[in-house]
Formats: sequence, structure tokens, C-alpha cells
Amino acid sequence: MAMTLEGPLKDRASWRADDCSIGKAMEAVGARSAILLLREAYYGTTRFDDFVERVGITDAVAATRLKQLVDVGVLERRPYREPGQRTRHEYVLTPMGRDLLPAVLALMQWGDKYLQPHGAPLRVVERATGAPVAIRPRSESGHDVELEDLAVTVNEERRAAVRTGR
Amino acid sequence: MAMTLEGPLKDRASWRADDCSIGKAMEAVGARSAILLLREAYYGTTRFDDFVERVGITDAVAATRLKQLVDVGVLERRPYREPGQRTRHEYVLTPMGRDLLPAVLALMQWGDKYLQPHGAPLRVVERATGAPVAIRPRSESGHDVELEDLAVTVNEERRAAVRTGR
Repeated sequence: MAMTLEGPLKDRASWRADDCSIGKAMEAVGARSAILLLREAYYGTTRFDDFVERVGITDAVAATRLKQLVDVGVLERRPYREPGQRTRHEYVLTPMGRDLLPAVLALMQWGDKYLQPHGAPLRVVERATGAPVAIRPRSESGHDVELEDLAVTVNEERRAAVRTGR
Repeated sequence: MAMTLEGPLKDRASWRADDCSIGKAMEAVGARSAILLLREAYYGTTRFDDFVERVGITDAVAATRLKQLVDVGVLERRPYREPGQRTRHEYVLTPMGRDLLPAVLALMQWGDKYLQPHGAPLRVVERATGAPVAIRPRSESGHDVELEDLAVTVNEERRAAVRTGR
């Protein structure tokens, strides 16, 4: 009922996942309002007032979180100007922000299944076919994999790179 | 650069994702320490002291979060007893907890790519083949799908069910 720990990881008492990418990701974008702002960006929201209204947060929280998401690198702040108006800014997804889509959709898929007694409010489908979309771990050999099919190993290349200060 | 909003969702000013599964998921398990406790459960950790040590949190935080994860339903608390010792409890993943694996691995995959200048510390692979594992949205038609390939629609079945109070 768990992943297999391989190599130097086998002895669980000898290591801790201190430099863990999951922890770093949660620090960078793990606030609920940050994830909901990203959801809105995926739905096409770009303007400050729309983020505030659609996420249901205050101007102050939206300003803080949007700045944080720009600093992290998942959104880009761009000036725009409508005729007769002063310059405003819009918030546009970067490739780094787009690459969070699997995580956000995976949370949605899980919430739809377990936290919605009446079923999912929204359906995410492939536009061209209408087919439902699922997020699952898949190996490069082309297999869908479950928890027990997975192994965790040390990335030796990184270890060597850190050791030599590269 | 966004999903396509379909049907009644097209008019963005007319709706808000108030009952959103992403928001509900973040409320249930979105704390950094909750996600790191789940990571440890995936790595095979079951005992309170090991969770405390391996996540690097205090006893008090671990107790609160583990209780929350049990209440949410992703972990089950089970008594166990070693010879000559008092009864203790271990924390074991439920199917609901296992189903969060794609979300946690997706965060890891993203953190590995963007937040680790020296590369991923750990590699998650398919045990049988050693092939790397990736988490991507995939349609039931069997296509890998990107943000622009996706459409969001209202789940009419749920709408009908809620309307008739079923």
C-alpha cells in the first residue's frame, strides 16, 4: 500500500525529504486563493476586477496574491489601455503557470469525486470530441500506474551536480 | 490561451465558480503540512513519530493535521500493539487518500521542473520498467490534452438533481 523506496532510500530512518519539490510547490502556489486565481486564469480571466469578483476575495488579497504569482513566475503582468482610459494591467499565464494545469485539474477531479454529494458542478472535456478528461500518473512506457506500481529513487545526476558545485 | 467556456458558461459575467471542487479540495487538504503528510503516507509512513520526524513539524501540528485528514477521510486511524507496549495508532491511506496521488505527483513534477535549479532530488518511476512517470490530462478518447484543447461545460445532470432535490 505504498511506493517502493529504492537504493539509499530503502532505510527510511536514514533520510528525510527536506528539499522536497512538493513542499516547494506548496510554498510557491499552495494558498487556496492562489490556486483559485490560477483556475480563473485557465478559464480566461485576465483583469484584476474580474479576478476579485470571480474568486470572491478582497482587492487587498487579490493584489497580494497576484503579485506573489507574478513573482513566482506563473503569471505575467502586462500593461493594456482602452481608448480614453488610463493604462491598466492584465495578468497572463506563463508557460510555468500553464504547467500547473495537471495539479489544478487533479484537485478538481478529486473534489468532484469525493466532495460533491450531487456530482460535479462543471465538466472538463476535450473540446474536439466532448470526451471527459482525467489526470492519472502514466509511465513513459505508456502504462497507467497506481501507487504500488511506483518506485522512488535518488536522482544521482543531481547528487553529483550538487556535490561538485555545478 | 485558455479553456473554452461552453453553453451557459460563455457569458462570463453571468456565473461564478462558487461551488468549485478545486476550492473544496483546497479547504479539505490544501495546507502544506497536510500535503506533506500525504506524501509520507505514499512513501509508506504510518506511525505518528515518523510523520513528525519526516515532515519536520511539531507533535501538536502533526496531531491536528492527522486528525483533520482522518476526519476528511483520506487517512484511517487504526490501533496496533507491539508485545509489552501499550496500544498505539497508525495512519493508513484510504481509497480517497490514494486518489489524491495524481494531485500530489503533479505538484512534485512541477516543483521538479521549476523550483529545483540542480534538478529533482528524487525520481518517481514505474517500478517494473524504471520508466519515468508523468502526470498529464488525457481524454477518454486517448489524447493527451493541453489547456487550449479543453472545454468547460455545466454538468446538467447535477443541475437537474439539485433542482429536484434528489
